[in-house]
Amino acid sequence: MNCLSKKIGIIGGGQLGKMMILDAKRLGFYVVTLDPTECCPSHSISDEHIVAAYDDEDALRQLAEKVDVITYEFEHIHVGILKQLEQEEYVIYPTVSSLAIIQNKFRQKTTLLKGQISVPRFQQIKTQQDIEEAGNRFGYPMMLKACTGGYDGKGNWVVQHKDAIQEAYKQLGNGQIELMIEEFVPFVKEISVLACRSIDGHIAIYPVGENIHEDSILDETRVPADITEDCTKKAMELASEVMEIFAGVGMFCVEMFVTEDDTIYINEVAPRPHNSGHYTIEGCMTSQFEQHIRAISGLPLGDVALRCPTVMRNLLGADGAYGKTCVDGLIEAQQDPHVKVHIYGKTEVREKRKMGHLTVCATTLDEAIERADQAKMCIQITHTHKEVIG
Amino acid sequence: MNCLSKKIGIIGGGQLGKMMILDAKRLGFYVVTLDPTECCPSHSISDEHIVAAYDDEDALRQLAEKVDVITYEFEHIHVGILKQLEQEEYVIYPTVSSLAIIQNKFRQKTTLLKGQISVPRFQQIKTQQDIEEAGNRFGYPMMLKACTGGYDGKGNWVVQHKDAIQEAYKQLGNGQIELMIEEFVPFVKEISVLACRSIDGHIAIYPVGENIHEDSILDETRVPADITEDCTKKAMELASEVMEIFAGVGMFCVEMFVTEDDTIYINEVAPRPHNSGHYTIEGCMTSQFEQHIRAISGLPLGDVALRCPTVMRNLLGADGAYGKTCVDGLIEAQQDPHVKVHIYGKTEVREKRKMGHLTVCATTLDEAIERADQAKMCIQITHTHKEVIG
Repeated sequence: MNCLSKKIGIIGGGQLGKMMILDAKRLGFYVVTLDPTECCPSHSISDEHIVAAYDDEDALRQLAEKVDVITYEFEHIHVGILKQLEQEEYVIYPTVSSLAIIQNKFRQKTTLLKGQISVPRFQQIKTQQDIEEAGNRFGYPMMLKACTGGYDGKGNWVVQHKDAIQEAYKQLGNGQIELMIEEFVPFVKEISVLACRSIDGHIAIYPVGENIHEDSILDETRVPADITEDCTKKAMELASEVMEIFAGVGMFCVEMFVTEDDTIYINEVAPRPHNSGHYTIEGCMTSQFEQHIRAISGLPLGDVALRCPTVMRNLLGADGAYGKTCVDGLIEAQQDPHVKVHIYGKTEVREKRKMGHLTVCATTLDEAIERADQAKMCIQITHTHKEVIG
Repeated sequence: MNCLSKKIGIIGGGQLGKMMILDAKRLGFYVVTLDPTECCPSHSISDEHIVAAYDDEDALRQLAEKVDVITYEFEHIHVGILKQLEQEEYVIYPTVSSLAIIQNKFRQKTTLLKGQISVPRFQQIKTQQDIEEAGNRFGYPMMLKACTGGYDGKGNWVVQHKDAIQEAYKQLGNGQIELMIEEFVPFVKEISVLACRSIDGHIAIYPVGENIHEDSILDETRVPADITEDCTKKAMELASEVMEIFAGVGMFCVEMFVTEDDTIYINEVAPRPHNSGHYTIEGCMTSQFEQHIRAISGLPLGDVALRCPTVMRNLLGADGAYGKTCVDGLIEAQQDPHVKVHIYGKTEVREKRKMGHLTVCATTLDEAIERADQAKMCIQITHTHKEVIG
């Protein structure tokens, strides 16, 4: 008899945490959030909110004591205290050992390579000299990357030619942070495959999504991806292999590059629900968020078939936005009855900050793209231009 | 520019309120709940919770002052204070005038009849003598009903024959409450049509659901209903006419009887999302809860087409259940990846109390029925048999 439904602790109360909670509450779970921001998106829907830094040892221990299982909505967490908690038999999913590997891009790629997964060629960088050597080996352009902490293109730097090495090195910490170089893959498509693994090792692979980035930030995901059937099959198999390698429990996102000749390289793996998986909320019977909650709480995995062609568009803070959030155009966007709007509830807006997204399911992908385009054009997220009392 | 998203106040924090909030939070709204129970299902996901009786004048006024629009999850509210608030230009949807009519079954039926809608024949009852006269007019069996306050068969009494009149009269308040008699309609199907009307008068009509009751409590809703195309069309038109008559804003549920010869009678109208509309969460692009929030907040209505054949089964407290809630069998029920479980989070269970529901979408209705049957059999909701610390 499982009389009390499990209590779930989530490190991070941003939009990913919020969307996990919306599904967790439907399923009857009790949720405790740890996030330093009082008014974070998860705040008002958590049963409890511990307001503390992500690496606050006391707060993390407090969280662990309150819940049956801890998870996280982002991978840039100091693993030290989590390792300690795991050793004390607190349950953390995805496991801290998989997190420790994945959060460091060099270790992540090394592990994938050992598992015979195709990744772009890469090497560790300790000195500016190493970058020059990599240039001789891989040719230009190539990608200089911080091994930890990057997101939305932050922490990555394209080295266009030999003369740009010094600047690149300077931009990425001037030797103060761990670096790696990756060869540039001349991809024609960026795709991602959401995958989930349950505690007992069952794996569910979502339909392949095609991602379109703008300024290195995800702008649009289209599902199904416009790739060959063979390529789709290969991508899904690859995602499954990746899940086995990391023995991940919970949702993972496997981002991939597809080249002209349908070769697939793994770009990056994230041990959590992912922006490119938001389409699953309306596009599949089981959203990536519900699936994550099911996996980490020991429930069987849900159905992942695509219900209809689906397009997701991100809603970012407008150029120059800085201050209290102001969302405009929601009525206009929702004149189309097929448009589903998600507003994360961030009280502060910044230029290009992820503030929400919208999804359209339609009979054809082209129709979904067109409707999503129209809706997105209506919405503007900027800062309030006057003081609003309320 | 609509810089602050609207604040919504909900009277009642049960499962209907909770499911409204889950959609409202996705859309970015701020929600204040008024409910006397500290640990009600809405508690942990509301931005604020005013713990007070539904008819506490001060609390209702406090709620009105905090939000832009007030709504409610059940119709048995004293309308006096709401009328006063509406006069003071606080916004309440559905309007208090429509609520005042609908919450009294005699006034509801009288209004429908005036609008030339088919309802079972009925008459007001002031004395036991009136019941006898009704018996002569309508024949037996007939339905004695409390005009206000009934739900799940409570407040209704079947008068089987003349000799049972005294008992029926005694059971329903012995003249202390307002009563009416309705003729018994020999229906072959009970159906319900969810309908929503926006502030500017647009109406969306959901697919017709077929309801199966057990002990007067809804057990199952199957969509589409197994009725003729013509009957379906007529039912949807009727629901639309009902929405025009009450000039309702928000979700309404129109329960109907269908007889052997496809005549449709309106049984009851509820001015709120309804148990028989839970299927819309997975079965339609726009759930009845999202639709309600959209309507009352001035957003355009969303798409209501059925995405696939869908079955909803209620999960009630087990026979003899009384105490702290214990839900058993969730892992077993969710072995079928198509089963979607909703647990309301009520801390106290009672026999036949609505504790959750499950939904199955499938390729055919028969398949959905079969899968829902299997899943429902796995789940048992009763009370804890020992003290649980946590």
